[in-house]
Amino acid sequence: MKKGVDLYNKAKTLIPGGTMLLSKRPEMHLPDLWPSYFHSAKGIMVTDLDNKTYTDMHIMGIGTNTLGYGYGPVDSAVQGVIEKGNMSTLNCPEEVELAERLVEMHSWSDMVRFARSGGEANAIAIRIARAAAGKDKVAVCGYHGWHDWYLSANLTEDAGLDGHLLPGLDPLGVPKGLRGTTIPFQYNDLNEITNIVMNNPDLGVIKMEVMRNEAPNPGYLEGIRKLCNKYNIVLIFDECTSGFRESYGGLHLKYGVEPDICMFGKALGNGYAITAVLGRRDVMEAAQKTFISSTFWTERIGPVAALATLDSMKELRSWEVITEQGKKLRQRWLGIANENNLNLTCFGIPALSSFSLDSIHWLKYKTYITQEMLKRGFLASNSVYLCIDHTDEVIEKYIMELEEIFATIGKYEASGNDISSLLEGPICHSGFKRLN
Amino acid sequence: MKKGVDLYNKAKTLIPGGTMLLSKRPEMHLPDLWPSYFHSAKGIMVTDLDNKTYTDMHIMGIGTNTLGYGYGPVDSAVQGVIEKGNMSTLNCPEEVELAERLVEMHSWSDMVRFARSGGEANAIAIRIARAAAGKDKVAVCGYHGWHDWYLSANLTEDAGLDGHLLPGLDPLGVPKGLRGTTIPFQYNDLNEITNIVMNNPDLGVIKMEVMRNEAPNPGYLEGIRKLCNKYNIVLIFDECTSGFRESYGGLHLKYGVEPDICMFGKALGNGYAITAVLGRRDVMEAAQKTFISSTFWTERIGPVAALATLDSMKELRSWEVITEQGKKLRQRWLGIANENNLNLTCFGIPALSSFSLDSIHWLKYKTYITQEMLKRGFLASNSVYLCIDHTDEVIEKYIMELEEIFATIGKYEASGNDISSLLEGPICHSGFKRLN
Repeated sequence: MKKGVDLYNKAKTLIPGGTMLLSKRPEMHLPDLWPSYFHSAKGIMVTDLDNKTYTDMHIMGIGTNTLGYGYGPVDSAVQGVIEKGNMSTLNCPEEVELAERLVEMHSWSDMVRFARSGGEANAIAIRIARAAAGKDKVAVCGYHGWHDWYLSANLTEDAGLDGHLLPGLDPLGVPKGLRGTTIPFQYNDLNEITNIVMNNPDLGVIKMEVMRNEAPNPGYLEGIRKLCNKYNIVLIFDECTSGFRESYGGLHLKYGVEPDICMFGKALGNGYAITAVLGRRDVMEAAQKTFISSTFWTERIGPVAALATLDSMKELRSWEVITEQGKKLRQRWLGIANENNLNLTCFGIPALSSFSLDSIHWLKYKTYITQEMLKRGFLASNSVYLCIDHTDEVIEKYIMELEEIFATIGKYEASGNDISSLLEGPICHSGFKRLN
Repeated sequence: MKKGVDLYNKAKTLIPGGTMLLSKRPEMHLPDLWPSYFHSAKGIMVTDLDNKTYTDMHIMGIGTNTLGYGYGPVDSAVQGVIEKGNMSTLNCPEEVELAERLVEMHSWSDMVRFARSGGEANAIAIRIARAAAGKDKVAVCGYHGWHDWYLSANLTEDAGLDGHLLPGLDPLGVPKGLRGTTIPFQYNDLNEITNIVMNNPDLGVIKMEVMRNEAPNPGYLEGIRKLCNKYNIVLIFDECTSGFRESYGGLHLKYGVEPDICMFGKALGNGYAITAVLGRRDVMEAAQKTFISSTFWTERIGPVAALATLDSMKELRSWEVITEQGKKLRQRWLGIANENNLNLTCFGIPALSSFSLDSIHWLKYKTYITQEMLKRGFLASNSVYLCIDHTDEVIEKYIMELEEIFATIGKYEASGNDISSLLEGPICHSGFKRLN
């Protein structure tokens, strides 16, 4: 991975942070040794700048490619856009078709706006919801991007404490005037959010992920919905990550609880940039009383890629495939951990499966796993975002390699010896913690 | 344009506002009669859903395509991305090359971040600048997108006056806690911005367009730069619109005044979504002390399209071509107006040329021009955003048609008769007024 490492060292002098996405920083995976850049990607195979090819048993473009990289029908549709033209003074008709499709898929919804990144979709949803509610305060649970409205949760009265509510998300540069406008709450604690609502009559919006790491307790989502109805609060489900992984559309369809707005991103365009904000008519029409407009939201690749992705997902029932494979994977993880006397916990929805080993040395073990799996031809850490190419065969091959690494970790964990001596570079960084 | 009109009527039931960009709403051009959607676009030819082809003497994708629609070398580069893969768990190497190229082009700059829309680029620049300055207040001149930080200029103490500072940009849904954080100033008035700086010791950022409608007075931009140096203010030039239209890079290169940050958008990818935030190292490194991160900022089409666009622009010296053609166009506009006793004013930089006729009936005339030019096979209004395909021949053909329309307008204007009788649909909407 020499060329990738060199290029990343150069990148750090030209790009603050080195990459555009925190989760794609080499330091998050294998500092100083990560291939960092790709030459090409197809299915689950990723080729780096040194022409070495890896099997992606990792974050699959951070969950963007449930159909695998370079999925034929989607790519063909995008080719068609290039031939016909991506941009003009007129609008692309496919955005209307995509809007219609998403509305049909979610019977509670009526109208849609599109953007090109998840952070944008989140900011649009908040703007519309605040405008519809006529109230500024927002309660949040989960991860919702980098914009001011969200990071303001980390502005506290005592500047020294800035950053404690959403660990790892530093609010420097977020105006202090937003202090107190965004209030975080814990997942699955109906009492807490009820108290927040009772104590904040100017709370207009609740934004949350339907689930991230743990499943909703019975009645929890329903309770939130009732609370919103009672206090005239706009309920937003951020489905940028969860959408199309357990159902054809939002994860909320599985739980039968309807929001007022939901957003989709990541999987919607199978690796092409498109995000959507979907909502009830009475809420969405508030968008017309404010100003939400951007040039590149009119480019054509996004909607066309999304339409082709929807077709393919529906045809393959990809959400069922990736959920089933995710469940299998978890069983195998638990199995090989058990065999090696490691205490392993799984979390996330099956299609976004992660594990951790219960040890104070966890970050070292995580680094060791990535280091050793890379040598064996896998991009891998403790999360696998599944796609349709993660077949039984692939999983077995991956587990076979991982098992040997678990065996080594098991020995170190049992003996109390420090695995640092086996690490060829620094320990990986821990990500920001999501509020759960 | 029947199919386009029908589809737009459907769109309005599915998409609040009907389109993703205010400037692409049919009502801005020719209500009820605009083709609205394109089937294909190539060079300056745009084909609508009824298979009618028009010559674009209008906003050319709102200034995204200075090389014309579907420019070969750029499209080929994007084809290559589809073949090699647009997305993966690793990063695309082209983003580093693009960063290097932009920095080389602007000797005062050191580091770059990329996004996919201009609104995002603006919000990133503001976050970084506030973090670097350690002060929240921003002074703005010009148009800078839809985000809260900008629209907050329209939050006033008296809610009834919300909206008067940036006419037409309604701040509904922008949290009131931002009131007073963004202060607009008039272009070319050094006294006003000096007073704003003197009266706001917590002002950390000045963001402006280098020029929009009128050229900078001698010493104006230099005066702003001095003010920023003296009061430790981060100076941001928003070059999303002006970049690559009079120089290879920012318009500020022409004037020799260096900002601390500048942004590029629109023309950078010749119709593919890519925007950039460029800055001095000491300012840009503040990005590392805050959180700015998004999944789709890692897709590959954007940087690859930008690199190919830069190559082609450099080879063709496209900024010179479009500037020269813009100047010619203005002379022709002035000529045919004069012949018909119309008082015509030109504004904007030559490559983004606009005119208005000095008459209380101007909006009616504008609508009439668009209506009649459409019949003659042109997308046209009072602005032409030039591209390399706007040759002398095209301009002459366009002027020949426009001259006849000016003749009619001249007669109505002279006689005092109302041209409404010739309008086949409603008068076009006036856009939001940019602060000048």
